[in-house]
Formats: sequence, structure tokens, C-alpha cells
Amino acid sequence: MHVYDLDTPALVVDLDVLERNIRGMAAHCAGLGIALRVHTKTHKIPEIAHMQLAAGAQGIVCQKLGEAEVMARAGIDDILIPYNLVGQPKVRRLTDLARRIRVLVAADSEEVAAGISRQAQADAVEVGVLIELETGGQRTGVQSPQAALELGKRVMDLPGLSLQGIMTFPSDVRAGPFIRETVELFEGAGLPCPVISGGGTGREATSKEIGCTETRSGSYAYEGPTRVTSNDDLDPQWCALRVVVTVVSVPTRERIIVDGGMKTFRAFPPNPYGLIVEQPQARMYGMSVEHGHVDVSQCDRRFRVGDKLSVIPQHQGMTTNLHDEVVGARDGQVKVVWQVRGRGKVK
Amino acid sequence: MHVYDLDTPALVVDLDVLERNIRGMAAHCAGLGIALRVHTKTHKIPEIAHMQLAAGAQGIVCQKLGEAEVMARAGIDDILIPYNLVGQPKVRRLTDLARRIRVLVAADSEEVAAGISRQAQADAVEVGVLIELETGGQRTGVQSPQAALELGKRVMDLPGLSLQGIMTFPSDVRAGPFIRETVELFEGAGLPCPVISGGGTGREATSKEIGCTETRSGSYAYEGPTRVTSNDDLDPQWCALRVVVTVVSVPTRERIIVDGGMKTFRAFPPNPYGLIVEQPQARMYGMSVEHGHVDVSQCDRRFRVGDKLSVIPQHQGMTTNLHDEVVGARDGQVKVVWQVRGRGKVK
Repeated sequence: MHVYDLDTPALVVDLDVLERNIRGMAAHCAGLGIALRVHTKTHKIPEIAHMQLAAGAQGIVCQKLGEAEVMARAGIDDILIPYNLVGQPKVRRLTDLARRIRVLVAADSEEVAAGISRQAQADAVEVGVLIELETGGQRTGVQSPQAALELGKRVMDLPGLSLQGIMTFPSDVRAGPFIRETVELFEGAGLPCPVISGGGTGREATSKEIGCTETRSGSYAYEGPTRVTSNDDLDPQWCALRVVVTVVSVPTRERIIVDGGMKTFRAFPPNPYGLIVEQPQARMYGMSVEHGHVDVSQCDRRFRVGDKLSVIPQHQGMTTNLHDEVVGARDGQVKVVWQVRGRGKVK
Repeated sequence: MHVYDLDTPALVVDLDVLERNIRGMAAHCAGLGIALRVHTKTHKIPEIAHMQLAAGAQGIVCQKLGEAEVMARAGIDDILIPYNLVGQPKVRRLTDLARRIRVLVAADSEEVAAGISRQAQADAVEVGVLIELETGGQRTGVQSPQAALELGKRVMDLPGLSLQGIMTFPSDVRAGPFIRETVELFEGAGLPCPVISGGGTGREATSKEIGCTETRSGSYAYEGPTRVTSNDDLDPQWCALRVVVTVVSVPTRERIIVDGGMKTFRAFPPNPYGLIVEQPQARMYGMSVEHGHVDVSQCDRRFRVGDKLSVIPQHQGMTTNLHDEVVGARDGQVKVVWQVRGRGKVK
């Protein structure tokens, strides 16, 4: 079946591009001599995570416990959750996971570490902990190497926890001094630090440069080795994800309406909405909830109701989260249908 | 159980506010003397649709066939799908629906009408059609009263279709002349026009003024009778939807991080991200995929990891679409858990 014969809107992954992106990133990290830990947020599909592991990744990252549970059920046994898990329901699920697989979790406060420790002690399991550093990302993380040291010592003292090192996001050269100083403080105090985890697709060399032992990259699977940030960078050669849509209205010569809108794509103004592969001169200029609004005034051809188009969405990982199913295709022919099993795991 | 004891992020509907909004809109439309057809996109929950029908709504609207199927399975028997349905899989599902319930569908081109007609004829059912007018919304719809007349005549000629009238979105006084002229042309040509459907929460009086027989309103269920468009308008008295989140990090005195981000909320820059009910001085100023970034520099109290907050999201209907489950609460106590059965119906 051709992808144009699918009911639309249909989320389609070009398998050739996906495989090339996976091979390319594995080779890139091998060349740098840094371990690759793949972030599965981009696809949320266990089958693709297994492809990435088979290509050489050392483990995966899941931002949500619910996504980690899906991946563990699919046989993946080394998962980092770089998120402060707070509250009894979550720490209980975490220790359940830790009983079955190697799990690492981040913490940036004693409250978070203590909550995990209490449950781990009650359940007689050990959970690996990375101290999260805020090295410029202005999000979570301890604010200084000294604070990292203090929290590291506390984690060493708390039962049920195993201090495994440190992490930050995103990897940036300015994070180098913070990381180096923290590592020195850890060494001086006799704290273990086998894992130094950095992240961000396109920042693998920086991760290596600032002393990380592993780099977390995710969006490369669908977006190519360099994260795209504007419509001009969207290149079908590297972008694996497409939304196949149908023209449902041709109200004027200049405007067509397709059956994919904000519930199908995740777009962020002021960025453009996506690249139309078959007609790059056509410009998606707006969206309502269920409609995409396309300016075709620069196109030579006339459009008709029923025409199919393939749109490369601007934010591929967030678009994935809106869909229950993804079709894998090669040369336009459907080869596989994957359930997006990690979709919608808000907890 | 108190909503603060739920695992987070948790989508919560205040049942008192919801019921007041539903009663208020029903009374508003009754007072105007216009039929109310409720748009279920806001909640996507059959149980709430039944509450709206019990309060006096004459039927519902679903923007997607998949949502209409969910609602029909739940016993709702009068559904308008104001969308051009194109392609064999969709028109077949439409005729399946038409066999069981009263279904109306929009069309703005002969191609759309002919596709439905072919399937309706093959399946020996009749489908009610409204001609969609583009009266300023710059989306779908025929461009002139004359074009509406021509398409109306075509619908009359096509087997399996029953011309039921016209529709537009949104209702606006500028649409009045377009509608009046179309109705006159229909009358002059002997075409039936029992339904004149307008829409948009807050536009009920305008719908009446421009001659509509029914008005489509949806967001009022969660957002109160007047659609809110900025953070200043978010009023807990009228906004039924809240996302209960947990503080997972207190990196600095000025910044806290909560466990709801872009995968939990649907926010559109440059609009603010939502109102924090317990601490209106706290300002959510940014989001990453799984984190909400909150400026608490103007708050008197100190925050701690584990604190719970209730956020009224800026776009309530789109936020709904990100969640599989909604909790109904009264005075903060959990009373019911609803599945968002219409969620994620991209087709």
C-alpha cells in the first residue's frame, strides 16, 4: 500500500531516513569516543529504541516514568530518568522498575533523594542516582559545585541509594568549569562519579569536550544529526517524519485547506508550520484545531480536493505525542505500523 | 480523596463550575430563542455531553468523525460534523453513522458532496448536508451566495443526500448579508433550508441576530460563558479545568519548577501559560516539554518540593486532548474519573 492510500492525517516515518540517522549518530559518537544514551521522547516507540540500541547505544533516557515502564516492558534494561520524581505513587513505581532493570534517576534536592530512599529501603532495592547540575539551562539542578558535593554526600548516607555521578542539560562549553570543579570536589571527598551525563542532539562533541562519559541525544532519530530550528533547515533527506494530509477544501486560487491542524501537528509560532515535501513553494501559514491553512499562490499547479501532501512537522517529538500510531514506509510503500506506546504518559 | 493527593500532573474539572457553565449557557440560548448545539471538542467526554443535552442542548457537534463515533456509541443520536469528509474510509464510516443516528455533515465543494453521495447510494442511506459558507473566517466554505446556491442545487440532485441548510463559522454581524442573500436565493430556487447554523462561544446573540436557527458553542463548558483570551481573563469562578501539579524543584528563591510542561498544557506564545489559582502572584513564564517554569519572586511564601498547585490552562480544549483521563471534583474532593474517550481522534 502506498502512503497516499492511507486514511489521513497519517503519521509516516521514512525508514531509510530513520536508519541513516540512527547509523550516523552511532558512528558520530563512536568516533568521538563517547557513550550514546538515546532519548526516546522523539519517537516513544520501543521498536525504534531497540534499533538504536542494536546500532550501539548503551541505554536509553525517558523523561517520564510512564515512558520508562513502557520501554522496560519491551525488554530494555538500562534506563535513565533525568527527572525529579516526587510523591509516593511515583517512587513506588520507580522501585518496581529498579527491581527489574538498571535504572538511574536524577535528583537536585535532598527532598527528592530522601523520598526515593525511603521507598527503596522499604522495598529493599537500590536505585542509582545522578546529581543534576544547573549549568545554564535555567531549569532544574543544583546551583553550584559545592551544593552538588553536599547533595552527593547526603545521597551516600541515605539507604537504598547508589550515587552514580552527575548530569546536566544542555551540554555547553560554559558548563565545563562547573563539571570539572564538581568532579574534583567528588574526588577529594571520596565520592564515586562513574557517570557524567550531558545532552542535546548536536552537542555530542561538546559533551565529550566538557568531560562527559555519555551524551543524551534523541531528536536526531527523526530530524537528522543536527537539530533543525527553522523551516529553511527542514530537509527531507534528514527528516524522517511526515504527516500525510488530504486537501479537503480549495476555497480560492491562493488558499487550500488540509486535514491536519493543531491536533495533528505541534507548531510553535513564530516558527513556520512545516515543509510540504511535494510542493516546497506551498507555505503552511496557519492552523486551526483541525485544519491546516496553506498559501499556494506561488505554486504553478492547481490543487484539487482529495490531493495528498506530505508535511514535515516543525516539532517532531511533540507531534509524535499527538498520535497513537505511526506508519513506517520505504519508497512510499507501507512496511510496518507501530503503536506509539509511550504516548500520553503524563505521569 | 483530595485532588492534592492525586498523582500529578492531574487534569481536574471543578464540577460546580462545570454545572454552572452548562446551566448558564442553556438559559442564555433559551432566553435568546435560539437552539444550542454543543461542540464537544472542549471536553471530548460523552458523560459531559449528556449533561449538556439534559440541560437543553438540541444536539452536539464533533469536528472529527472519530469523535462522533465515540459520542454515538455513548447513545447520542444527533450529531453535526462541520468538516469536509474526503476519501473512501471516511465516507464509509459516515454512512455507518447515518444508519444509526441523525447525522449532518458540511460540504463546500461538489467533490466532497459527490464522494458522500456515492457511498450513501451504495449503502442505501441518506445523509443530511449543510452548505458551508466562508463569511470571513478565511478557512473553508463557498465564497459567495451564488456559489452556495449552485452547490445546494447539486446536493439536491445527488442521490443519498438530503439538503438541510447552511452553516458558517464564526458568527459575525458581517456574515449577516451573506446569509440573508443565500437564504433568499435558496427560497427563490425552492431549496429547503431548515437549518442555519452559526457558532462560537460568546457569539450566541450574534448567531440569533444574523438569522441562524442554531448556534454552536463548546468552550463555555470549561471556560465560562465568555471565551477567555488572555491570562487576565482567567477567573476560577468560571474556569472549570485545572491541572494539579507538584513542585519538583526549587532551584532558586525566584524560580520553581513544576511537573507540567508542553506535554501537559497547550499554551500559545505570546499568551501567558495559565493562572495559578492558589498563588496568582506566581507567574508561569515558560515551559519545556515536561517542566513548567514559574517565577515566584512576587510571592510572600516560600515553596518546597512536594507542594501542590492548581493551574488553569490557557487553552482548555487543546489541553484536554493531551490527557487520557479527567478527574471531576467538588470542593477539592474527587467525585468521578472520566475517560477522555474522544481524545486523539486524528481521523
